[in-house]
Amino acid sequence: MVKKVAIVGAGVSGLTSIKCCLEEGLEPTCFEQSDDIGGLWRFTDYVEDGRPSTYRSMVSNSSKEMSAFTDFPYPENFPAFLSHHQLLEYLRMYTKHFDLQKYIQLKTKVISIKKCPDFSNTGQWEIVIEANGKQSSTIFDAVMVCVGYLTEPLLPLKSYSGLEKFNGHYFHSREYKTPEVFRDKKVLVIGMGNSGVDIAVEATQTAKKVMISTERGSWVISRVFDNGYPWDMVFLSRFLNIIRNSLPGRITVWMIANRVSQWFNHANYGLIPKDRRVMREPVLNDLLPSCIITGKISIMPAVKEFKENAVVFVNVPTAEEVDTVVFATGYKASFPFIDESILKVENRHASLYKYIFLPQLEKPTLAIIGFIRPFGAIMPVVEIQARWVTRVFNGLCKLPPPKTMMEEINEKKNNKVNRFGLSFDEVLKTDCLVYCDELGSFIGIKPSVPALLLKDPILAVKIFFGPCSPYQYRLTGPGKWDGARNAILNQWDRVLKPLRTRVVEDSSNCFSCLLKGLAVFVILVGIYLSFN
Amino acid sequence: MVKKVAIVGAGVSGLTSIKCCLEEGLEPTCFEQSDDIGGLWRFTDYVEDGRPSTYRSMVSNSSKEMSAFTDFPYPENFPAFLSHHQLLEYLRMYTKHFDLQKYIQLKTKVISIKKCPDFSNTGQWEIVIEANGKQSSTIFDAVMVCVGYLTEPLLPLKSYSGLEKFNGHYFHSREYKTPEVFRDKKVLVIGMGNSGVDIAVEATQTAKKVMISTERGSWVISRVFDNGYPWDMVFLSRFLNIIRNSLPGRITVWMIANRVSQWFNHANYGLIPKDRRVMREPVLNDLLPSCIITGKISIMPAVKEFKENAVVFVNVPTAEEVDTVVFATGYKASFPFIDESILKVENRHASLYKYIFLPQLEKPTLAIIGFIRPFGAIMPVVEIQARWVTRVFNGLCKLPPPKTMMEEINEKKNNKVNRFGLSFDEVLKTDCLVYCDELGSFIGIKPSVPALLLKDPILAVKIFFGPCSPYQYRLTGPGKWDGARNAILNQWDRVLKPLRTRVVEDSSNCFSCLLKGLAVFVILVGIYLSFN
Repeated sequence: MVKKVAIVGAGVSGLTSIKCCLEEGLEPTCFEQSDDIGGLWRFTDYVEDGRPSTYRSMVSNSSKEMSAFTDFPYPENFPAFLSHHQLLEYLRMYTKHFDLQKYIQLKTKVISIKKCPDFSNTGQWEIVIEANGKQSSTIFDAVMVCVGYLTEPLLPLKSYSGLEKFNGHYFHSREYKTPEVFRDKKVLVIGMGNSGVDIAVEATQTAKKVMISTERGSWVISRVFDNGYPWDMVFLSRFLNIIRNSLPGRITVWMIANRVSQWFNHANYGLIPKDRRVMREPVLNDLLPSCIITGKISIMPAVKEFKENAVVFVNVPTAEEVDTVVFATGYKASFPFIDESILKVENRHASLYKYIFLPQLEKPTLAIIGFIRPFGAIMPVVEIQARWVTRVFNGLCKLPPPKTMMEEINEKKNNKVNRFGLSFDEVLKTDCLVYCDELGSFIGIKPSVPALLLKDPILAVKIFFGPCSPYQYRLTGPGKWDGARNAILNQWDRVLKPLRTRVVEDSSNCFSCLLKGLAVFVILVGIYLSFN
Repeated sequence: MVKKVAIVGAGVSGLTSIKCCLEEGLEPTCFEQSDDIGGLWRFTDYVEDGRPSTYRSMVSNSSKEMSAFTDFPYPENFPAFLSHHQLLEYLRMYTKHFDLQKYIQLKTKVISIKKCPDFSNTGQWEIVIEANGKQSSTIFDAVMVCVGYLTEPLLPLKSYSGLEKFNGHYFHSREYKTPEVFRDKKVLVIGMGNSGVDIAVEATQTAKKVMISTERGSWVISRVFDNGYPWDMVFLSRFLNIIRNSLPGRITVWMIANRVSQWFNHANYGLIPKDRRVMREPVLNDLLPSCIITGKISIMPAVKEFKENAVVFVNVPTAEEVDTVVFATGYKASFPFIDESILKVENRHASLYKYIFLPQLEKPTLAIIGFIRPFGAIMPVVEIQARWVTRVFNGLCKLPPPKTMMEEINEKKNNKVNRFGLSFDEVLKTDCLVYCDELGSFIGIKPSVPALLLKDPILAVKIFFGPCSPYQYRLTGPGKWDGARNAILNQWDRVLKPLRTRVVEDSSNCFSCLLKGLAVFVILVGIYLSFN
């Protein structure tokens, strides 16, 4: 029977894993290598080995209502999208409220995680840790690995011809902190994921010239979505998800592309994806089109080769002068403390059942939490993972036989490019919601819209047509939270209140209604008149 | 007979005035107080007395195709919206191409402009200038005043209660150059015209907190308009202008407000104008909503009073701490070299026929160029003013009797708040196009769409439905330019080319057409399925 659980890392995934262990009567011990909690969201001015690193201006890509843990909404006065320090503050509030700090051992590095000799019976792990320069070993009944995937930079320097003769400065996006480094430089950012674009946009504040090189292109969407509502609160609803998932993949891709192009024509801005049949994860950035149309950023094709002080792009006749290159080429997943015979990552993918469990282990006592890139906020997803995992640990949930698990993994691997599907890095994850619902149904916390429709129709409508906010997974089943209904009903208020710092009496509503009826008619008259 | 024309100022208005004088056989002499041409568009790191001053990051609010002089398109490689240094480069190219430099006397300040004693016969002016510390006087047949209205800051300090005890730092937006001045400060920008918002947005790069105080609110639109096309190339067309002007004012206002709100709901963002019945000049900013939704900028109501280290806002219970205040309160027009008995500016308005001529002068030999705020680019408007004025000077165009002119001015003054109308500062100027067409018809250069429809239908369609670009006023009549037709036909190419630095073969067009037909049907099926 699992009792003692080791948790590696005290970021978003680690913190919620502690809480879920406590809820399920387990005894968590969380090891955090650095001197504080927060993981990615604890900004430092310097880069630390083995820790995620981010830039000073980073703002969350998902809105606060979609980025909450399922029973812990953000304070009303927090803005709709959060800076890293506000997100860290939230994590500290979560830690304090659920009294998690005492389970965390800071400045403690996990050196190795090895099966105990009697693993096939006990499922136990021997964990070697290092603290204060001393190593020690402890036996745990289960392990939750919560180290994320943004620590080990992927820097494919060898694939860039001529880089060795380039006289300029280059570095990985992980090293980037503030735009001062670009003062009066000609900057090239290679790769246009979210950080690449953020860095390029910020570079325009100080640089002489900024280019982004992208072979594949990308769809770009803004946080400020339809009528100014947060993109994820509009986009990620059960209603829209059903529409998207019940249509053939190409039609869904076309619909989304069409919607995204209303903001700006991606072909005109040089951003159009090379293969429009596949919906890759879009880039979230509010400022990129403005930077392009004002000439501050140029979108360039793939790099062909480096010269001493310049770069040649594919299909571009003249070389472009460059002083500084940022490789925004992403990260490789890395679990240095687990032997490759147990967990192997290839091409940024690992064979994990529901992205969590190793199907071939004799006992399901090792779980990888947060090794997933949902198209949306990570917090509710990792929390639901941890809720399920802790119930697998304590025996309340069961895994299928290894063969079934392997079959599902292999099927997903094969289908991931052609269909929407939840995979680590390659495909747009519209069914993140499907994934959460699936884990939720394993636990018994998935909300049932038809059942609610009779009992609480207002709530049912909000759940079906409104944003699929995390609180939906606290309405029923184990871990039910009494505040969940209210949290859902008030979610728009909490988003809008910090925006509405200047309120004006609305005197024109009736008039506006009247006009809406008349407008179409009058426009037609206007057109008629204009031709007479 | 007018021959010698004095031009005061070598900015946008002054330069085109020189060219128009030369075209009409006049002899221009342009006096420029500073040591170079360019006016507003020549950025300097320091503020100079008697010259417009702007900030380092300023970008044009109108697109390059709409901001051109009528016979001089921007180079193809210039971006769609121009930085001040690109705009200055354009002005230098214009100056060089039309050989204007030799008519300009730099470092020469105009001290006074006085009627000659025989003015009622000759219409001549005595102009006293100062150069190298020496004053001298010359007689001119006519004067074109091209000094703009962005030189004399309006700083209504007395209307802010408690400002004398405020311990923080405050200055007029004219003094602003770069965001370093806001490093780690709590910043309040008072007023939300274009510069106020630009400064606030830029302050978020360095400040601890940024607020904008606005009593009246404002509609905000983005340069990146429908499908990413420049706002003015979409908005300012003859077709849409006829629709707007043939509808009752309130319906037009409502239609525009509705369109503007598609980007974001102005009430939710605290920006909604207080009086929604009147369309004030919108603010042009691409980044403001993003800054608000991420909590970097708060929109506050009017200032009630200043405290030692804080500001109290109307209807806000708690005071907000503030270190630095920027008064983005605009400018007052000022013509210190002309006696008030001739030209008087009251409440930022002067009694000018067509915003140019003083109706009560015995001879129409004094013209104010560019004393106007079109909703769109200033360049074509001032050029058409100058083309008309020079033809009034040389007798080819006539002004109506003083009484008619005064009547028109008075009528405009009375109507300006209730109706759309071209006035100096208060009302949205949708009929900027009407104004240019009116002056154009005086000169005989107004394009006739019905006539063109027979002769050159493609051009006619582009002129009527496409952007009302400046080249339209060079198709016919005096000053006809052979390149005008091509300039119109290629205007979209010149805008899109600098954006399309990465071109991807479009393989999906047929598929996309097919899908457009199917999509509606399939969505309905999807909805149907989702309920089964």
